[in-house]
Amino acid sequence: MVQYVGVQHVTNLIAATGLPEFLVGLAGYVEEDFRRWEAFEKSPRIASHSAHGVIELMPASDGSLYGFKYVNGHPRNTYSGLQTVTAFGVLSDVETGYPQFLSEMTITTALRTAVTSALAARYLARADAKVMAMIGLGAQSEFQALAFKAILGISRLRVFDIDPLATEKFVANLTDEGFEIVVAGTSQEAVLGADIITTVTADKQKAIILSDNMVGAGVHINAVGGDCPGKTELQRELLLRADVFVEYPEQTRIEGEIQQMPADFPVTELWEVMTGKKPGRTSERQITIFDSVGFATEDFSALRYLRDQVQGTDFYADIDLLAEPRDPRDLFGLLRPRLHQHAPVRMKARA
Amino acid sequence: MVQYVGVQHVTNLIAATGLPEFLVGLAGYVEEDFRRWEAFEKSPRIASHSAHGVIELMPASDGSLYGFKYVNGHPRNTYSGLQTVTAFGVLSDVETGYPQFLSEMTITTALRTAVTSALAARYLARADAKVMAMIGLGAQSEFQALAFKAILGISRLRVFDIDPLATEKFVANLTDEGFEIVVAGTSQEAVLGADIITTVTADKQKAIILSDNMVGAGVHINAVGGDCPGKTELQRELLLRADVFVEYPEQTRIEGEIQQMPADFPVTELWEVMTGKKPGRTSERQITIFDSVGFATEDFSALRYLRDQVQGTDFYADIDLLAEPRDPRDLFGLLRPRLHQHAPVRMKARA
Repeated sequence: MVQYVGVQHVTNLIAATGLPEFLVGLAGYVEEDFRRWEAFEKSPRIASHSAHGVIELMPASDGSLYGFKYVNGHPRNTYSGLQTVTAFGVLSDVETGYPQFLSEMTITTALRTAVTSALAARYLARADAKVMAMIGLGAQSEFQALAFKAILGISRLRVFDIDPLATEKFVANLTDEGFEIVVAGTSQEAVLGADIITTVTADKQKAIILSDNMVGAGVHINAVGGDCPGKTELQRELLLRADVFVEYPEQTRIEGEIQQMPADFPVTELWEVMTGKKPGRTSERQITIFDSVGFATEDFSALRYLRDQVQGTDFYADIDLLAEPRDPRDLFGLLRPRLHQHAPVRMKARA
Repeated sequence: MVQYVGVQHVTNLIAATGLPEFLVGLAGYVEEDFRRWEAFEKSPRIASHSAHGVIELMPASDGSLYGFKYVNGHPRNTYSGLQTVTAFGVLSDVETGYPQFLSEMTITTALRTAVTSALAARYLARADAKVMAMIGLGAQSEFQALAFKAILGISRLRVFDIDPLATEKFVANLTDEGFEIVVAGTSQEAVLGADIITTVTADKQKAIILSDNMVGAGVHINAVGGDCPGKTELQRELLLRADVFVEYPEQTRIEGEIQQMPADFPVTELWEVMTGKKPGRTSERQITIFDSVGFATEDFSALRYLRDQVQGTDFYADIDLLAEPRDPRDLFGLLRPRLHQHAPVRMKARA
């Protein structure tokens, strides 16, 4: 049998665990896997592009476990009441090739993305960072805010979205979560005095959500929204002024903010900072950018975490995704139960 | 919700439909998709190799539906009572990117492989073919025999396997299926007088299951077992004497019998024969070989068939693989039901 974790299971698991505790636990798994980066078989995701969006498969393996995520990105879905991003994932045993664990990953992707952003900021933002500006208050926004609070203790937010209803939803969802939220009238107003700026807008276009002149010295930028070809949020000049940190350059150069830059634009890999191979922030005045696109190892970590969390709980169900004949050479026997015990009938058949 | 078809659902569906009827129906879908070959986005499967086997993702899209299959190949699994191949697959809507249908594909892969072999033989074997030799009587063998009976009316079999228990299982499973089965003592004896020779052995090695001198004029060879790098069944000289037909050359040159041949070894694509663009068998004395490795479009066809067959039946279950927030921008709302109705609380939050 394969362990199945659906949306209801995940929401129940998170409610039972507590969201801050869940985010901290997940961060531990994500960081652990970034620290053993060289142990992974890695590749850019396999994308199937169409008129309205993209469907991607994201495999990763550490030699003992194999994981992959199915994820789509369809910006126009929102207009028909659907999500722009849905996802699910699977963990398998490399030695047998058998799938072991299947989980929803729409909610889980939002959580692992937020956790990775907060982890990156722990290495890249100023140690005394207190205020985070957020531009874009869509489906990913609350998760970002809560991860930064759980992992970095950031509780002061300055937020802006062009859509007042999105802003209202964001503020309503985070009431009683211990935030001090200032709703700004413009993105320029939102970033005033911010130590960290998170851009997480949804429209698929080369936009300038953050222009060079909006960003002062010492700021850390958590650029989440620019995550596929043709979708960026930062002005080119800003990238030239800053030091840019990425997950997996081969993928980020295609999908991230640095798709605007030449192929040899210098970047530092996040795992190198986490393992101490390379420095993160080196001065108070340095501008750092985490050019987040989301990488397969983060999904691998999230699947591992979910799998470990649900063992011995009611937060999963066993499903018969795999045929399990008593005799592996007798797959057909599953269709013919009455013949499953073979009498030696060779002679009869020959007659 | 996503429609889920497990092993029990598939076996019940097949029992209710009747296996021959199921095979004929499936063949219709597989042939339909081969006939519109140029409509598909195609790529060789994405493989993750390890010491004991391989895990592969096989995507295909016709622009309206996107499908992929997860499949492993672990020859040594048999020794520990596990299957060498397990699989599952998903169909999605290209326009929204939403997965719609998730199914077991271990049994289904055996069925679609057998159906594709029988379809190829309908175009490549002599019209008067009556006798099929089968070498290798493992998990795939009964499906091959039943597909050739359902689609080509082949009822006379000459079979051999080095393992007497596999032979016993095969004969027992096909009792009462209307076959005349001759169990041969050697593969040489099995192929005597055969019009069609199916090789479907399992060991991962460059073997010579069929040598040049075993095959007379006019025979069609259905070479199923050679399906990954380092795994072949036919002697090189036999390939030189025959005309070779393949599914997708880019993949077959890596995985099929023709991995033994230079990159420019001439082959004909099966879809070209099915659409009449190229001839199949052109003479009574010609030796034809279908170098079967299994291609993603066949899984796409099988998923379409399963999906269409289970509509309006009890042979599937709805599972909550996808998060469906009432407001697509309010994914977080799924975690906070009590906040799902947003009161306008902006002023309060500002205070």
